[in-house]
Amino acid sequence: MSNAQYEFGMVGLGVMGRNLALNMADHQVAVIGLDLDPVKAAALETEAGEGKPVRGTTSAEEFVQSIRRPRALMLLVPAGRPVDAAIASLLPLLEPGDIIVDGGNSYFPDTDRRVTELAEKGIHFFGMGISGGEKGARFGPSMMPGGNREAYERLRPTFEAVAAKVNGEPCVSYLGNGSAGNYVKMVHNGIEYAIMQLIAETYDLLKRGFNFSDEQLQSLFEQWNQTELQSFLIEITGEILKQKDEFTGKPLVSMISDRARSKGTGKWTSQNAMDLQVPVPSIDMAVLMRDMSKYKEERVAAAKLLPNPTSDAATTVNQEELVNQVRNAFYFAMMVTYAQGMAQLRVASEAYNYGLQMQEVAKIWRGGCIIRAVCLEDFRQAYEKDVNLPNLLLDPKIGQDLLERQQDTRAILKLTIDKGIPMPAFMASLSYFDAYRSETLPTNLIQAQRDYFGAHTYERVDREGIFHTQWGE
Amino acid sequence: MSNAQYEFGMVGLGVMGRNLALNMADHQVAVIGLDLDPVKAAALETEAGEGKPVRGTTSAEEFVQSIRRPRALMLLVPAGRPVDAAIASLLPLLEPGDIIVDGGNSYFPDTDRRVTELAEKGIHFFGMGISGGEKGARFGPSMMPGGNREAYERLRPTFEAVAAKVNGEPCVSYLGNGSAGNYVKMVHNGIEYAIMQLIAETYDLLKRGFNFSDEQLQSLFEQWNQTELQSFLIEITGEILKQKDEFTGKPLVSMISDRARSKGTGKWTSQNAMDLQVPVPSIDMAVLMRDMSKYKEERVAAAKLLPNPTSDAATTVNQEELVNQVRNAFYFAMMVTYAQGMAQLRVASEAYNYGLQMQEVAKIWRGGCIIRAVCLEDFRQAYEKDVNLPNLLLDPKIGQDLLERQQDTRAILKLTIDKGIPMPAFMASLSYFDAYRSETLPTNLIQAQRDYFGAHTYERVDREGIFHTQWGE
Repeated sequence: MSNAQYEFGMVGLGVMGRNLALNMADHQVAVIGLDLDPVKAAALETEAGEGKPVRGTTSAEEFVQSIRRPRALMLLVPAGRPVDAAIASLLPLLEPGDIIVDGGNSYFPDTDRRVTELAEKGIHFFGMGISGGEKGARFGPSMMPGGNREAYERLRPTFEAVAAKVNGEPCVSYLGNGSAGNYVKMVHNGIEYAIMQLIAETYDLLKRGFNFSDEQLQSLFEQWNQTELQSFLIEITGEILKQKDEFTGKPLVSMISDRARSKGTGKWTSQNAMDLQVPVPSIDMAVLMRDMSKYKEERVAAAKLLPNPTSDAATTVNQEELVNQVRNAFYFAMMVTYAQGMAQLRVASEAYNYGLQMQEVAKIWRGGCIIRAVCLEDFRQAYEKDVNLPNLLLDPKIGQDLLERQQDTRAILKLTIDKGIPMPAFMASLSYFDAYRSETLPTNLIQAQRDYFGAHTYERVDREGIFHTQWGE
Repeated sequence: MSNAQYEFGMVGLGVMGRNLALNMADHQVAVIGLDLDPVKAAALETEAGEGKPVRGTTSAEEFVQSIRRPRALMLLVPAGRPVDAAIASLLPLLEPGDIIVDGGNSYFPDTDRRVTELAEKGIHFFGMGISGGEKGARFGPSMMPGGNREAYERLRPTFEAVAAKVNGEPCVSYLGNGSAGNYVKMVHNGIEYAIMQLIAETYDLLKRGFNFSDEQLQSLFEQWNQTELQSFLIEITGEILKQKDEFTGKPLVSMISDRARSKGTGKWTSQNAMDLQVPVPSIDMAVLMRDMSKYKEERVAAAKLLPNPTSDAATTVNQEELVNQVRNAFYFAMMVTYAQGMAQLRVASEAYNYGLQMQEVAKIWRGGCIIRAVCLEDFRQAYEKDVNLPNLLLDPKIGQDLLERQQDTRAILKLTIDKGIPMPAFMASLSYFDAYRSETLPTNLIQAQRDYFGAHTYERVDREGIFHTQWGE
């Protein structure tokens, strides 16, 4: 083919970059891929098969010259220095008006820095979160782009072609300025951590607390995926519990070490929420329970020293009622978790001038991504009814859903307290709910203490001004 | 007096600097104070009174020349740029071997940077946390110095003279390298946040949940301060509840706004704990409840939409039994909170090469500081018995104290769940306890999920290596 005939360029042909390029080719988007590894460059063409508008190259010059102007190219390289290195190597070949999209999980302040640096050279830089894993990249991810609104038009047809669809609507939308896309993806991952932790706590309660077998649990999660809990994470939990271990024939999950790992995006969500003074306790608990899992030797020692409380509360539980209560409690905690994350996005949008449309976020999370769930449609409708809704808990329908489930949630948490089984993300969700619906919190006493020992002053409920008291005199 | 006759120099004669200088003078430590404000410089001498070895000056030259070599001088200026500005203005006047102590709440990485920068010029830089507020500075604070061990000998006599004493032992000790002192103070403040939150939750449960009056609560805290709960924060809570409002005659605390403020050290503790992968959930919850308190308008709206659950669980409670259970639950949660903070210090000491002696930390927190409490002596003994104790929960005596109180703690948390009153720091403390004593956590399921959607791999319980499964195939 002649020069400059490719619609899109992909830098980095690892599994994510290759799959996304193949996804583009499936949708008749002509794509050229760049990788310094000739094996990966060649593999792209082989995997695409005959007649697809795909080329792989190891030459940055050929790559850049082959993309239609203004050029649209995406980096799918590891976050951090590799992104800066890729930009530095391509920059001399690019022209004003060209667009670089970073499709990795970059830390959002890095994106803001790159946007500013590249704007000076007339290059548009986009940070775009992509969720859905390898399969999502191949067959339809959820995509969260942020950057220059006008420049987005160059990207829109390609992204809308490859994104997941829900009721014919693509799971991609221009989200906002600067690092908006990376920020939304970061909070997506924070919510993902929390929902995974809620599922793990549910599994622990039923397995350790009530001796459910992995088979029983598998069938339960399969059933739940037919209810209002329907979601990707519930679905794959059912599939995971079905998987048999090739070595022992036991359920594979029981052979997996309980030392969890993480790549840091959940931690960033929690840390940044603290900077913005937005409470996201369910996410915080999910982050720290992965940390807690690492202290295996200490936990083994503590288990001997600090035995389980003896309790007869559990013996009289009706199993069908228990399972119903647990399902309602899970839904309650999951809704409260989403509410926390969405509230964080709203505050961040204000703080960082993203201009986020919350209904767009809910819309593009309905499909393709790891936290997709039927409840996202409820959230979308809540935000469409009231674009300034400060918190999902204030939506009447969602509020009603929670009120209907709060007694079951309370029942389950009382049970787990008796059982001595830790459910910190559930507890944090209920605490958040109870604190958020508290017109008055006891923080007046904290302000008094701060004024007592540190002369930090306080405000009053009945008059304006800043006050200080010589306490105890 | 002749030149260079002052033992110690104090830079910044605000309330903390002035009080600490006066404290030194009381102990026959000749001290010269520097402040650019002549009123403050003069006030130091006036307040010290006749015959005290104290001088105030506005001249940096006179100040530096008047201190015995190697010079020891302390900055008590606001954290951040003012510290760098003070260092820059004094540096040309100093000589190799001189010592600068930063007595403010500096962020610990700033201290490490300053230590390195000043070491190049032969100047020893110390970061020293000081706790106890204005009164502590005047009559005996707890002091947490970190820096060069040999140089500390120049400071030791002065610091030991002015520090609080417990059984004749001064509440100051060389803590370790670099920013060790600032780090220990940061975690001190994180624990302080959490204990204040635990007290506030206790107050809320009894007042909002069981209609205790401020007078009843005041007498309760006074009684508790005669028990194993004896501590500065319990003591001042009793005094605060006694204080009448000058405008209305009501208990002053009831007239204080519930929008809490913070200066950020609690947040630093939580954020750094996440970096170090140390779970400190009780501190996290305290940090975020201050944030939650700011959302007043939303909470008022939510209170209408999401009413309190109706529950008859509370009406049958025996008040004496309730108060006993609450006291035991408070002790339980407080101990677990200290355990989290101490565990963070231990991990930080390893990560940052501080060389902390945990028994010294417990020792100097017994008096003078905001989190002083009788239980610190238990912690000291626990660490003296086993200097490598990874967590206070693993000390047999402390473990026994917790086991004896766990049923009351569970009873109280079940009550508060019924009442719908948020006690997130209590809940986080119990969750931490239950997770820490769990030989197996359900994070194996999280690892399976991560491998399912992200090919993040997992480890097994029965064989070495890294594994990946094609789930569902």
